[in-house]
Amino acid sequence: MAAPTVLQTLTALQAGIEVAAMAAFAVSGIVAAVRKRLDPVGVVVVAWLAAFGGGTLRDLLLDRRPFFWVEQGWQVWGVLLLCMAALGVMRARHLRPTERAMQWPDALGLGLFAANGTQFAVAAGMAPLNAVVMGVITACFGGVLRDIVCNEIPATLRDHRPYALCAFAGGWVVIGAGHAGFAADIALIAGAVTASALRAAGLVFDWRLPGWRADG
Amino acid sequence: MAAPTVLQTLTALQAGIEVAAMAAFAVSGIVAAVRKRLDPVGVVVVAWLAAFGGGTLRDLLLDRRPFFWVEQGWQVWGVLLLCMAALGVMRARHLRPTERAMQWPDALGLGLFAANGTQFAVAAGMAPLNAVVMGVITACFGGVLRDIVCNEIPATLRDHRPYALCAFAGGWVVIGAGHAGFAADIALIAGAVTASALRAAGLVFDWRLPGWRADG
Amino acid sequence: MAAPTVLQTLTALQAGIEVAAMAAFAVSGIVAAVRKRLDPVGVVVVAWLAAFGGGTLRDLLLDRRPFFWVEQGWQVWGVLLLCMAALGVMRARHLRPTERAMQWPDALGLGLFAANGTQFAVAAGMAPLNAVVMGVITACFGGVLRDIVCNEIPATLRDHRPYALCAFAGGWVVIGAGHAGFAADIALIAGAVTASALRAAGLVFDWRLPGWRADG
Repeated sequence: MAAPTVLQTLTALQAGIEVAAMAAFAVSGIVAAVRKRLDPVGVVVVAWLAAFGGGTLRDLLLDRRPFFWVEQGWQVWGVLLLCMAALGVMRARHLRPTERAMQWPDALGLGLFAANGTQFAVAAGMAPLNAVVMGVITACFGGVLRDIVCNEIPATLRDHRPYALCAFAGGWVVIGAGHAGFAADIALIAGAVTASALRAAGLVFDWRLPGWRADG
Repeated sequence: MAAPTVLQTLTALQAGIEVAAMAAFAVSGIVAAVRKRLDPVGVVVVAWLAAFGGGTLRDLLLDRRPFFWVEQGWQVWGVLLLCMAALGVMRARHLRPTERAMQWPDALGLGLFAANGTQFAVAAGMAPLNAVVMGVITACFGGVLRDIVCNEIPATLRDHRPYALCAFAGGWVVIGAGHAGFAADIALIAGAVTASALRAAGLVFDWRLPGWRADG
Repeated sequence: MAAPTVLQTLTALQAGIEVAAMAAFAVSGIVAAVRKRLDPVGVVVVAWLAAFGGGTLRDLLLDRRPFFWVEQGWQVWGVLLLCMAALGVMRARHLRPTERAMQWPDALGLGLFAANGTQFAVAAGMAPLNAVVMGVITACFGGVLRDIVCNEIPATLRDHRPYALCAFAGGWVVIGAGHAGFAADIALIAGAVTASALRAAGLVFDWRLPGWRADG
């Protein structure tokens, strides 16, 4: 049997990151829902929105059908199972540590979804800025939906920590790498790594966005 | 003139249930909007969202055009008239009894829309789980939108009473009946009756979903 | 060089009003976001939703692609620049006067978007009532999204001042003018002027919608 090529390894790596990121997004939904004392149905719905909301809006805006979660039905089952597992396990654990541990796969997912949403949009013929915005939507809209349903102002828009901005930067790297003639795979990786690294750096060094003086 | 066939009777019955259910959904929106002291425009909008939001999202996700309420324009007029009637009548009545009386047509609507949303999705080629989820969305999303616009956490996700779960069960009955070779009509009725009966039983026997320990 | 025709003048006028209206909508988003102390990303997102949300939902419901802001990419840049300018300028100014000054371009935008959303929907084959509703959505949904993301009940649904109703009236004028055989341009102008004038009159004369007795 031949050894897997570099490309195959990368694809497998990407699939692995995608699963880890989706789980991280789903867990962020579970934590938020449990905080708000939703019932089990609410927990599943919010987890689902957090995990699939961004990609669904991307597909809806790009008019892509079937939705990615229709093509890959096991992902929907995966979130259901994850919620049931969390229902059993999380009773005895604290929410805050879970949330903190989830920041790292979440950062990976942010990068991957931003890069991959940008590429979908470019392939659909969008101009660079719009494609990057589509990447940001793919990466961030799940969390926005999660917070809206939980009756909170979305954390991404409020907490002064770079999140959407990291996705934005990663999207531009994808565009730039594409213009510079790199292959789509390389552009994807470069964008994803940029966005994830920026997010991780922001968390480690506690970067804050400047405030806006509302009392002006 | 020939007597109507069984099929015609069923179709007429379904149309009647649909109208009753839509009115119940619209009234739930009117009650919620009046509670929040919205103005008349707000009342009409929230009633409209409660009645048509679920089916609209279903059509949007399945990429069906025209929307069902574009095809059947009288439904939109119906909600407008209902709001005006309620504006006149409800001044002198209590909101809570209205809400309680509406639970029964609402349960009928839950079943009908869950079954019929599932069938639309199956016809559009979706896998069973996704089709059932589409049925749940059709049945529940109107109420979710209503609550989000009224700045509340959606009741379906929070009140520990089986609602979406009944729709979910009804959807699986539709799928199961279809696989067992029953005609689409029979599958629809079986699914709708299952979901409505479960919802009604839940109301009568005061079923509660287990809580999630947030203090863990 | 020939003098511009009346039609060219009108088109230029319309484009000018559109830009002014979009800026007014975006500024309403900036003001709302600053009030809620969102971070800069939140300000940009809420401004964008306020400016483009209505037209995007219209395009989504009518299944029009590409979106109007994909076709006219400079508008997206314009909102970004406007937010940055506001970030610099608004620090030293009061929010309330900004909001009040914005009511007039906002009223222009209300009329223009209501008329133009109605015409798009008629062109897509919708029945009159649905087309008018589509115009109302185009004009009002941006503000609704802005308020939902800021965790408020949408002002349009709550403040007892005619806003959506003015768009509704303007939409019917477009329909009526079309049925009376006027050219699309004239119908558009008649509808836009009606809606804007009604909104302006409502602001000047402090019109209020009747309340609904919630204690009934």
